[in-house]
Amino acid sequence: LLMAEMEELYPADIASILLELDGEPAHYLMTLVDTETGAEILSHIEPDDRKRFIKERFTVEEIAKYVNLFDSDDAVDLLNEQTIEVREKVIALIEDREQARFILDMLHYPEDVAGGLMQKELIKVNANWTVSECVEEIRRQAEDVEKVYAVYVVDDEQRLKGIVSLKRIILARKNTKIENILDEEIVYVETTRPGEEVAEIMQRYDLDAIPVVNTLGRLLGRITIDDVVDFITDKAEEDIQVMAGITGEAEEDDSVWQLAKARLPWLIVGVIGSLLAATVIGHFEGEFQKVSALAAFIPIMGSTGGNVGIQTSSLIVQSLAEKSGITTSLGQRLFKIILVALVNGFIIGSLAGVYIYVSGNTQLFFVVCCSLISVVVLASFTGTVTPLLLDKLGINPAIASGPFITTANDIIGIGTYLMIANLLLHL
Amino acid sequence: LLMAEMEELYPADIASILLELDGEPAHYLMTLVDTETGAEILSHIEPDDRKRFIKERFTVEEIAKYVNLFDSDDAVDLLNEQTIEVREKVIALIEDREQARFILDMLHYPEDVAGGLMQKELIKVNANWTVSECVEEIRRQAEDVEKVYAVYVVDDEQRLKGIVSLKRIILARKNTKIENILDEEIVYVETTRPGEEVAEIMQRYDLDAIPVVNTLGRLLGRITIDDVVDFITDKAEEDIQVMAGITGEAEEDDSVWQLAKARLPWLIVGVIGSLLAATVIGHFEGEFQKVSALAAFIPIMGSTGGNVGIQTSSLIVQSLAEKSGITTSLGQRLFKIILVALVNGFIIGSLAGVYIYVSGNTQLFFVVCCSLISVVVLASFTGTVTPLLLDKLGINPAIASGPFITTANDIIGIGTYLMIANLLLHL
Ligand SMILES: [Mg+2]
Ligand SMILES: [Mg+2]
Ligand SMILES: [Mg+2]
Ligand SMILES: [Mg+2]
Ligand SMILES: [Mg+2]
Ligand SMILES: [Mg+2]
Ligand SMILES: [Mg+2]
Ligand SMILES: [Mg+2]
Ligand SMILES: [Mg+2]
Ligand SMILES: [Mg+2]
Ligand SMILES: [Mg+2]
Ligand SMILES: [Mg+2]
Ligand SMILES: [Mg+2]
Repeated sequence: LLMAEMEELYPADIASILLELDGEPAHYLMTLVDTETGAEILSHIEPDDRKRFIKERFTVEEIAKYVNLFDSDDAVDLLNEQTIEVREKVIALIEDREQARFILDMLHYPEDVAGGLMQKELIKVNANWTVSECVEEIRRQAEDVEKVYAVYVVDDEQRLKGIVSLKRIILARKNTKIENILDEEIVYVETTRPGEEVAEIMQRYDLDAIPVVNTLGRLLGRITIDDVVDFITDKAEEDIQVMAGITGEAEEDDSVWQLAKARLPWLIVGVIGSLLAATVIGHFEGEFQKVSALAAFIPIMGSTGGNVGIQTSSLIVQSLAEKSGITTSLGQRLFKIILVALVNGFIIGSLAGVYIYVSGNTQLFFVVCCSLISVVVLASFTGTVTPLLLDKLGINPAIASGPFITTANDIIGIGTYLMIANLLLHL
Repeated sequence: LLMAEMEELYPADIASILLELDGEPAHYLMTLVDTETGAEILSHIEPDDRKRFIKERFTVEEIAKYVNLFDSDDAVDLLNEQTIEVREKVIALIEDREQARFILDMLHYPEDVAGGLMQKELIKVNANWTVSECVEEIRRQAEDVEKVYAVYVVDDEQRLKGIVSLKRIILARKNTKIENILDEEIVYVETTRPGEEVAEIMQRYDLDAIPVVNTLGRLLGRITIDDVVDFITDKAEEDIQVMAGITGEAEEDDSVWQLAKARLPWLIVGVIGSLLAATVIGHFEGEFQKVSALAAFIPIMGSTGGNVGIQTSSLIVQSLAEKSGITTSLGQRLFKIILVALVNGFIIGSLAGVYIYVSGNTQLFFVVCCSLISVVVLASFTGTVTPLLLDKLGINPAIASGPFITTANDIIGIGTYLMIANLLLHL
């Protein structure tokens, strides 16, 4: 009964159900479905959940049984999650030796470059074949290559020469030579291309699959759009976590200590920064005793600095990510950003000015207004320069949109404020 | 010469070049290429750039000439960017009246639901057709339907019955009936499905296209994966801008005033919040005069509150976006989050404690440590509750990860600190 119901479900949905069950019952359900469905279910579980699930319940032989039916890209992913020991045992148990060799090769690539995203399953034909030979090849590979999209045309040295879409094959006559219908205007990538660029290229040209070649131009595999979609959403999630100051891939269902650990690094950076600010403020203790209202405007300097810094840096990070269209020089860019900062600084400064006027602390009028304008300008400057610098140093510039910039601007903002106060009030 | 060179380029690349040129020369280049290439170029320009470009240089007749060659989804997008006047004139000039009627229907849908993402171009066949009739239909529609992916099978009432992949059609015998090879396990959406859900479904089941039906189950169109990829990246960019406190779709190349305006709303929220904090601090003026070191720890309360708030809320926002897997109750969730907060609060509190001990301000030791722990717990609480509340109210919960939560936590943090100081120091 349970089996009959499970057969009605999509493997992706069964995968979700398994995760809710966890442990022994989940493993039991896996034994109920046939190996093929089981393989599909496993390929739909997210890396860290799958790692745990497999580690707890599966023997090396069971893993190999499923991996045999995996697409090569998914097999590489699954093996990368295992210990070296398990990995080697599983590879030794893979029936298809060609598949095993390919997987061994693919394990060398980082998971976020073209080589780490590609699968070897594709239809490859020779330019001098006819359309019906081509169809025969599709029939031979039908089980292995789930989505075909197009047929890749290579020469005798396996060098990529062109592609023919399935639509074109359907519409062509049976004895037409492939070389007469192939499209030579192909977009391809090499194995070392970063995943971000693969995604950008596939998005730009609206591709459903992109061939991957080695440095000699030989066709090694292809990357399909479904895996690129997964890559894009993973990266987007990562960017948000970086901005929020969370390290690693924290998720709500992680343990308390894991969650605490993911947050600590940036919280500590923030605390150290704030203690620095505390030291600065400590130096002005005399001033605070003379003009006690001074303390009231510490928060506005810190938070305005932080907010402006994040706004500026996130626009810069975004334009760095898009790459295309950065035609303006750093000078021009800074000039414009400073202009924007001046506009906003004056508006915010006036707001604060009105508050001070109403609350009667007129002594601080000029100090607060001047400080706010300076803080906005300074924060815009650091918000621009920091991500550009990080990018030059090869560090993910998105870090600059997180607690880092807030903390830096907190200190800069408060420091500027106190110096201006000292200057203008002749304390 | 220029023409010959342009024919070597992909339309998507020409689109980028046109944007760098801007204005008259760009329009001139468009007249050099044939209408078909021109239409493809136009469909690759981003909405706001295209809107400006078309408004400045194109007559209604020119627009109609290109729109005639557009896929229906792109035609709807382009027309949505125009004024109602231009829109009506262009629709009146569209040669294919069926296309014009479809476009008129599609204009009613918001651009971020299934109806606003779909195109009518697809291959539709009847269940009692044979494979070769099916191939003939593909041939008839070959020009209109660029990517086929699969053939949709409908009954006499146009109700969706199943799909047949192109691969299956290639491998089937010519006189096989479609009803014998169709796959009835189809995933489809209705026109009103939010785009986020369409994206999630296509990602979950690794689809390259998804059929769209009306409430009666009649097949209206399909959504292709390339448009969903665009949708996903747009939404990711939007989320980051919301987190950074930028309204609208600001880009680096916008005008100074546009950029300033995009940042002002949240800056003003921040300023108002900070002025509130200033008022709170103002009430404790006497305390500051007695214990002047009190001012030094205002920044650490504000920034820790802000950082913890953003970390917590962004995890909640993320789990709301993923939807699946939220099986824990609010109570359980809060309990766990408070535990995490206590762990972090104690660690941060100890750090600050060491600083105070070393700097000799032992008077404030307990005040600062207790305040920090309370601030972390309170910020975790508001960081959890705020996005959940916003989501319930139908507001994008991501707003809670931006300046909103920082500002709120600045005030809460500083207020808590001063109250605890007041209590413990008996000022
Ligand atoms: Mg991989
Ligand atoms: Mg397979
Ligand atoms: Mg695209
Ligand atoms: Mg794959
Ligand atoms: Mg995949
Ligand atoms: Mg997890
Ligand atoms: Mg649309
Ligand atoms: Mg077309
Ligand atoms: Mg997927
Ligand atoms: Mg489209
Ligand atoms: Mg599109
Ligand atoms: Mg723009
Ligand atoms: Mg702050």
